[in-house]
Amino acid sequence: MPHRRTKAIMSALASLSNRQVRLARRPTGLPTRDDWSFTTEAVAEPGDGEVVVKTLALSLDPAMRGWMNDAKSYIAPVALGDVMRAGGIGRVVASRSDRLKEGDLVTGALGVQEYARFGEADARKAGLAKIDPRLGSITQWLNVLGMPGMTGYFGLMDIGQPKPGDTVVVSGAAGAVGQTVGQLARIKGCRVVGIAGGRDKCDWVVGELGFDACIDYKAGDVKAALKEHCPKGIDVYFDNVGGEILDAALARLARGARIVICGAISQYNNMQAMQGPKNYMSLLVNRARMEGMVVFDYVDRFPAAIAELAGYLKDRRMKSKEDVVEGIENFPEALTKLFTGGNFGKLVLQVSAG
Amino acid sequence: MPHRRTKAIMSALASLSNRQVRLARRPTGLPTRDDWSFTTEAVAEPGDGEVVVKTLALSLDPAMRGWMNDAKSYIAPVALGDVMRAGGIGRVVASRSDRLKEGDLVTGALGVQEYARFGEADARKAGLAKIDPRLGSITQWLNVLGMPGMTGYFGLMDIGQPKPGDTVVVSGAAGAVGQTVGQLARIKGCRVVGIAGGRDKCDWVVGELGFDACIDYKAGDVKAALKEHCPKGIDVYFDNVGGEILDAALARLARGARIVICGAISQYNNMQAMQGPKNYMSLLVNRARMEGMVVFDYVDRFPAAIAELAGYLKDRRMKSKEDVVEGIENFPEALTKLFTGGNFGKLVLQVSAG
Repeated sequence: MPHRRTKAIMSALASLSNRQVRLARRPTGLPTRDDWSFTTEAVAEPGDGEVVVKTLALSLDPAMRGWMNDAKSYIAPVALGDVMRAGGIGRVVASRSDRLKEGDLVTGALGVQEYARFGEADARKAGLAKIDPRLGSITQWLNVLGMPGMTGYFGLMDIGQPKPGDTVVVSGAAGAVGQTVGQLARIKGCRVVGIAGGRDKCDWVVGELGFDACIDYKAGDVKAALKEHCPKGIDVYFDNVGGEILDAALARLARGARIVICGAISQYNNMQAMQGPKNYMSLLVNRARMEGMVVFDYVDRFPAAIAELAGYLKDRRMKSKEDVVEGIENFPEALTKLFTGGNFGKLVLQVSAG
Repeated sequence: MPHRRTKAIMSALASLSNRQVRLARRPTGLPTRDDWSFTTEAVAEPGDGEVVVKTLALSLDPAMRGWMNDAKSYIAPVALGDVMRAGGIGRVVASRSDRLKEGDLVTGALGVQEYARFGEADARKAGLAKIDPRLGSITQWLNVLGMPGMTGYFGLMDIGQPKPGDTVVVSGAAGAVGQTVGQLARIKGCRVVGIAGGRDKCDWVVGELGFDACIDYKAGDVKAALKEHCPKGIDVYFDNVGGEILDAALARLARGARIVICGAISQYNNMQAMQGPKNYMSLLVNRARMEGMVVFDYVDRFPAAIAELAGYLKDRRMKSKEDVVEGIENFPEALTKLFTGGNFGKLVLQVSAG
């Protein structure tokens, strides 16, 4: 029997509408507004064991571009006509579940919509989990304490295996994953060189985040700049971008280097053949390795990583920057910012103020 | 004071001439006869601590193409005008060293010449070491018991890390490294699929070496054939060739796969830009890794590996095939066979019958 407050909310839910963004067609190259459809549904009341979550903010990620393709990958494509997959933070506004109560803040795959309803199995599949707002702001929970932070943490620590004194290079340095990787490497005693697009991002990465150097790939020769800033070679290269920058890093590896393949944003909208790293034989010359990682493999260890990173946020050894776009209706244009380098910091779509 | 026999040999040496092949210019693309010069020198008598080795047979290896380029690699380029670097087997014909005596069979970097003279430091640098002819024939000492065998052994065991039941794929399967890799993987309990050029090589690899299957890359679609022969995906891919075949293997990786980067023979004479593996993002999707290896890193462990492989030769669990070309004057044409797929088995240049 739902208690009184839930009853009241449920009648309130009936008067609400749920705006949604659905995948209308599979894009070629950079997605446009025409690739999406916009629907509005009534907010369904929770059944037994179900919860209704109001979306507060959504994470916009490069990986989303891959989910739009009809190709085998580490996760199924979004089906045509489905609400676009997106991780986010929301508030439970109605609950008939024992696990979550109204008012709880949660993280999970809410989708690009204003309200999401979950049964128990759906909630597990969506990774729905309560978050502690004392550990970080809502946008930080989508950044350092969210998937990008977890990706940076496990990619660097498990695959990159940095040792104190190592030279760590990270591309997309001002982006969500990059800021965690670079700051964490600094905390672990490494020399850290970022690669980012534009003077503002580079200045911020060095001035605010404490990287030792940052290379503006829009300003000149990345290969020459890596030579200057990595005189002893690169021990760990954390790659978010692929393409020419990956090749420049390969040309500068130290003996026994580790390359973490986390993404290839320069290639996601490539309508030509994918560009492979033509300098990959540097792996042989330098006895180096290149290894891919998918953050979902580390879910069991998220709590410990979140606790560690929240500690760094609290004692100010780590900072974060989010680029917040408001309004679910602006999702299509917001997403494309990722691929043009238009965002500065972790890109977040604020769907509701509270 | 040299004893009597050495004195006699030394006067005999003086009447001998040493034919040599030197690097005359750096080739573009496939080397031709014009890239070499042919010289004849007197055989110098050994000084104190020195030995003179008569070359019996030389190993012709794909890596030689890289040594001809003026580019930074895991080993210095051969200088213009120098005797071409080559590993081989020889017999000590004169010795003023305590470490080796006349008649000893040795392996080491003898160079493409009929006689080589080594002081103690030179001998160390050339890796000059006595071999035991009871463990294998002279050509086997250049194959399974030599650098190709060591490359296959440590590349497979240390980098590939095969487990019983794994599917192991090796390109250049009928070549020197490939035959060791495939047979060793079979002995370790893996399912083994080779890739080789032509029906004869494939038939031999399956019929004589006991591979489970072999794909003739000249006969058709390697990607489709890998799908057929590796229904559960590839756990270990040992790459000797690069190019399209590496891409086909990347497209068929199992979760957690290991790719051993040992060579890229398809690209060594490429006059265009090196072709990078455009499917490298499969490393991410499959949480796989690609790692380079250089055999010289494992020198300390050669004796144990040689003992293990010699045991397999002795009990007939492992076979070997060498393709022997006779005559130092035929070195240029023999070398190019490697790059046109013209050799069948480990390519050996026999310089002297004994």
